[in-house]
Amino acid sequence: MKAAVLGTSGYTGQLLIRFLLEHPDVTEIVPVSSSQAGEKLAGMDPGLGSSGLEKVKTTGQTCVTIEQAKTMKPDVVFAALPHQKSGEVCGQFLETSVIIDLSADFRFRDAAVFTKAYGAAPPRPDLLDRAVFGLCEWHTAAIKHADLIANPGCYVTSALLPLLPLVKEKLIKEKIIVNSFSGISGAGKKTEVKYLYCERTENAGAYSPGTQHRHCAEIQAELDGAVKGSQVFFLPHLAPMKRGIASTIAMELKKAMHRDEIIALYKKYYGGKPFVGIREKGQPETGDVWGSNRCDIGFHIEGENLFLFSVLDNLVKGASGQAIQNMNLRFGLGETAGLRRHGEF
Amino acid sequence: MKAAVLGTSGYTGQLLIRFLLEHPDVTEIVPVSSSQAGEKLAGMDPGLGSSGLEKVKTTGQTCVTIEQAKTMKPDVVFAALPHQKSGEVCGQFLETSVIIDLSADFRFRDAAVFTKAYGAAPPRPDLLDRAVFGLCEWHTAAIKHADLIANPGCYVTSALLPLLPLVKEKLIKEKIIVNSFSGISGAGKKTEVKYLYCERTENAGAYSPGTQHRHCAEIQAELDGAVKGSQVFFLPHLAPMKRGIASTIAMELKKAMHRDEIIALYKKYYGGKPFVGIREKGQPETGDVWGSNRCDIGFHIEGENLFLFSVLDNLVKGASGQAIQNMNLRFGLGETAGLRRHGEF
Amino acid sequence: MKAAVLGTSGYTGQLLIRFLLEHPDVTEIVPVSSSQAGEKLAGMDPGLGSSGLEKVKTTGQTCVTIEQAKTMKPDVVFAALPHQKSGEVCGQFLETSVIIDLSADFRFRDAAVFTKAYGAAPPRPDLLDRAVFGLCEWHTAAIKHADLIANPGCYVTSALLPLLPLVKEKLIKEKIIVNSFSGISGAGKKTEVKYLYCERTENAGAYSPGTQHRHCAEIQAELDGAVKGSQVFFLPHLAPMKRGIASTIAMELKKAMHRDEIIALYKKYYGGKPFVGIREKGQPETGDVWGSNRCDIGFHIEGENLFLFSVLDNLVKGASGQAIQNMNLRFGLGETAGLRRHGEF
Amino acid sequence: MKAAVLGTSGYTGQLLIRFLLEHPDVTEIVPVSSSQAGEKLAGMDPGLGSSGLEKVKTTGQTCVTIEQAKTMKPDVVFAALPHQKSGEVCGQFLETSVIIDLSADFRFRDAAVFTKAYGAAPPRPDLLDRAVFGLCEWHTAAIKHADLIANPGCYVTSALLPLLPLVKEKLIKEKIIVNSFSGISGAGKKTEVKYLYCERTENAGAYSPGTQHRHCAEIQAELDGAVKGSQVFFLPHLAPMKRGIASTIAMELKKAMHRDEIIALYKKYYGGKPFVGIREKGQPETGDVWGSNRCDIGFHIEGENLFLFSVLDNLVKGASGQAIQNMNLRFGLGETAGLRRHGEF
Repeated sequence: MKAAVLGTSGYTGQLLIRFLLEHPDVTEIVPVSSSQAGEKLAGMDPGLGSSGLEKVKTTGQTCVTIEQAKTMKPDVVFAALPHQKSGEVCGQFLETSVIIDLSADFRFRDAAVFTKAYGAAPPRPDLLDRAVFGLCEWHTAAIKHADLIANPGCYVTSALLPLLPLVKEKLIKEKIIVNSFSGISGAGKKTEVKYLYCERTENAGAYSPGTQHRHCAEIQAELDGAVKGSQVFFLPHLAPMKRGIASTIAMELKKAMHRDEIIALYKKYYGGKPFVGIREKGQPETGDVWGSNRCDIGFHIEGENLFLFSVLDNLVKGASGQAIQNMNLRFGLGETAGLRRHGEF
Repeated sequence: MKAAVLGTSGYTGQLLIRFLLEHPDVTEIVPVSSSQAGEKLAGMDPGLGSSGLEKVKTTGQTCVTIEQAKTMKPDVVFAALPHQKSGEVCGQFLETSVIIDLSADFRFRDAAVFTKAYGAAPPRPDLLDRAVFGLCEWHTAAIKHADLIANPGCYVTSALLPLLPLVKEKLIKEKIIVNSFSGISGAGKKTEVKYLYCERTENAGAYSPGTQHRHCAEIQAELDGAVKGSQVFFLPHLAPMKRGIASTIAMELKKAMHRDEIIALYKKYYGGKPFVGIREKGQPETGDVWGSNRCDIGFHIEGENLFLFSVLDNLVKGASGQAIQNMNLRFGLGETAGLRRHGEF
Repeated sequence: MKAAVLGTSGYTGQLLIRFLLEHPDVTEIVPVSSSQAGEKLAGMDPGLGSSGLEKVKTTGQTCVTIEQAKTMKPDVVFAALPHQKSGEVCGQFLETSVIIDLSADFRFRDAAVFTKAYGAAPPRPDLLDRAVFGLCEWHTAAIKHADLIANPGCYVTSALLPLLPLVKEKLIKEKIIVNSFSGISGAGKKTEVKYLYCERTENAGAYSPGTQHRHCAEIQAELDGAVKGSQVFFLPHLAPMKRGIASTIAMELKKAMHRDEIIALYKKYYGGKPFVGIREKGQPETGDVWGSNRCDIGFHIEGENLFLFSVLDNLVKGASGQAIQNMNLRFGLGETAGLRRHGEF
Repeated sequence: MKAAVLGTSGYTGQLLIRFLLEHPDVTEIVPVSSSQAGEKLAGMDPGLGSSGLEKVKTTGQTCVTIEQAKTMKPDVVFAALPHQKSGEVCGQFLETSVIIDLSADFRFRDAAVFTKAYGAAPPRPDLLDRAVFGLCEWHTAAIKHADLIANPGCYVTSALLPLLPLVKEKLIKEKIIVNSFSGISGAGKKTEVKYLYCERTENAGAYSPGTQHRHCAEIQAELDGAVKGSQVFFLPHLAPMKRGIASTIAMELKKAMHRDEIIALYKKYYGGKPFVGIREKGQPETGDVWGSNRCDIGFHIEGENLFLFSVLDNLVKGASGQAIQNMNLRFGLGETAGLRRHGEF
């Protein structure tokens, strides 16, 4: 397997490189950057160290341009670029390579929904129909044959994995409130005052609440794609940590259910899935899944009032790890190859 | 003013000592500890430094026993001891001193509610009728004449200040969901594995959700005391920070209101209150109120769906600062004396 | 007292505003900003809250321009601007006001030393002779009569306070190694990738070591000003915290001394000084002085090998707090007025 | 390979389990705990998740007793127990298994040195002669044939890897000052007030400085084992992070050397070593090696004054990772098998 990564300087790009370096089935990695072409990968990212980069076979282990990358015909291209740019660039590889795009550019079937959420039309509306939403546990069959996979957002994965079994079974009432607490890396490597260390340490709070949030649109679109009739309110918060999302989701059951019934339902959907953990006791914490590709789900039920608690690492199951899982599914590799199921404590 | 502090080694006791040292109207401080009587205050708490402790007039600036403290007839006694013990000890000062108790022991009018929440009867059920719930902005008149003030809990203050105007005006439907994210000092100085630095840094998650939580009972009791008919679900979380609570509260209005109407309502109740901040734009963050006695409140409205966002410093407005504010009200001092309105950034 | 603050959006400016708001002898505050003139102070800094700003008497409590500030003839002007700009701007107030400059622009008597350290000549070489180095415990007499006070750097204060007694008494050999660990706010509010939350949390390391560092020149110049003959090597590090500097200083005594002799020496110089703490047992931690204007010093001696350990809050004793202390000294106010001796735990 | 882990509830034990689960040559893991025998490994450590534990072949994937573990005849036994206990317990496996002990019990050749440092005699003085000090890059040949490997301490590894080339070549003068900043996990999972989150966040400082520190004795003993004539002063500090050590080491060269000569020397010793990084530019940070088994070394030279800067992850190269590296060397596996060379950013 030859894998290219578009955008190697952001957090998701850096993690993709690491996962590919450790992946047993990947033999060649092509780092791509238009702004840093010709620079040595190790110099750009001191965490990589200077050894153990044998899979990077470009001259001097440097980044190459997009044009150079095209001539190398990678089997798979991961795009970790800003939205609008990502879709435009990775679309160019579609003839030769499978595309896994980590931006929002191919996540919506309906261009109008994208346009409303992002304030501009998607860069390649012509390709929306070919894209598969890469939520691995739910679109497995389609992913296996997809040439263009839209990797879901981090908040979105943390909401959809707990919600979809209930929505699919039509067990809950319309209104769903998703409270999410995210680590700061969810914002990427943006150099804005509000993301400085001194602004975020010992500091927590909500921002951009409600249905207007881009990720609310993405959650809503996927739920509607399963079964119509829900109304999601999304309440994102920043928590003073680098990685991790904890989502606490409130809803009402159409009729009261016993805890055992709920857990049995989740086992029906996720039993045997290597990256979904069902917590029969207590509630999960983001530290439990730090560095792993797992999403753990906990439950609290009082009569018809149901609360779900999900945690994941926003850069792994919420971004680069799920992208690798999509590659594994698409190319028939072991689903867990190159990924960790165990959180660093 | 002569002020005694029962329990000087915990976080709330340490902060009480600091506030009293800076308070312009307090001339004498009596630190009280049965286990550490005879120890120098400065040695127990290196943050105090060795100078600037002139108000501590005990021999050698040491802690005294409870018996010794009684003979000193303090004007006010702050009790910062564990529940059950706190009420039992501070009750002994009632003949000579005004009591401000930071534990839960006098927070409930109904002993049965305390017993259900805390698993044992309150230590001094005979005094419950004399106690005033020290939520300063709501029980001001009663506090001014009280001899026994039950200082509210931190989670509870962060929920009641945003909720009470709406409940009082009977504007909202029954169900209220309080999502709270708390810094770790909310747990006090307990030496349990789960509160170790390595367990909490880079880690967030929910715990003990639902109506069974002690603080849910306290929120519910106060709301019921105002107007009956609400049902609170409380979802506490730990966030990796020392101080601060951010509460995000979801509810439905009986009928849709405009944002301006909501803000006007809060100005009616809190305009001119020095320690409640109304955020007309954006949402508050805990960092804005770190070290201050302020609770800031933000708003998001979509039709009948209303979301409130409150932040406070759990050790200040959520504990020791509100205790000082109670002293100020009770003794006719300036309400802001010795307290900060400005958060350390 | 009417006090103006040049540069209200940086961390030291924000803290100056807070200290002035709490200061009992300051009755009027003039916030000055050329880029944000006309903006409301409360809106620029949500930590301030909307009340308690009565001392800001500008129209609408907004920032004013430099020209406007000049017409207000403040008693004291604090300059919290970047070096080069700071000296140039605050110099304009010299006829009407006492200047306390927090930049490096007036810290060196010798323009050549400034030029070497900062890569450009100082903005107002003509004023260097009039400036007093505002290390409060060492230049007290001069500060009382100064019109232009150069507030020392944070690293520099953490090195000079422990070193000066030994240098003054000529007790140590030439070579001095200053290892300093600084919180991130030492870098100010710069929007560079390396100061992002995700880059600094869970991360520590050295940067720019040796005699070439700007602050090494400042330490060296002051030691030389006391007694010539030392050679300082400065090894700065970043630690993952917002505030605080811990400096660990290694040197050799000319002849072995007993611990008691060393401590007696420090008591001779600092006994009765409200903001220097001498630790007779154990070593100080930055948390002990968080928010306070104190510098605490600890000791370890093995024969002729002496190690000193100092801690301070880089934004308080290392910047804005010492600036207030300088104002207090200059205007004959109480030395501790408006400042805290007790660290927030 | 069948591997047993004694002590699965501490941080080093938890990490050993993770490394063994990911190790390609390990097929069976035996978790051992006398206090928690019979408990499910997954229940004890929620980070592990409930799947991916196939290598744990004990009944119900539970911990077994020491007696049970003996009957299973593991190829290798990792002991991650407190000192005194560790040596006593793992010594019992010496007939059937290779022992890799992470405690201090076998780190000293001379029982008297251990006794002085630890205040009690080593538990198995009879085995000291058989033990090899497991600093992988320096005792490679001996490790390959050892039955009892004493895994070095974390501080010690961070000091010895940078120091040994210079000591071996007799290039430096006697006095060496090791300043180390450690993350909190270096203290293990001890439930003491000083390791609580609220005590350590936003807090840094020195503790237990000088030659009396246990780890100073360990550094000194190894340097003496190479070439006698050095005198180490060790100055440990705590930094507010979970993992990582940054050591800054000051010394004088016998005669001035050029930077290139120094770097050439380190390449001679460490060129081709997968887990030692030589930084030709700038200084390393602990974040660069978080989660990796690397130790990176940087340099600053001014004439005869030499400063070395090393970083490692105290739980990986400083403990569990180096233990795995020792297993790899001892059993002729790939030196990097199951280990990461790339730091999580």
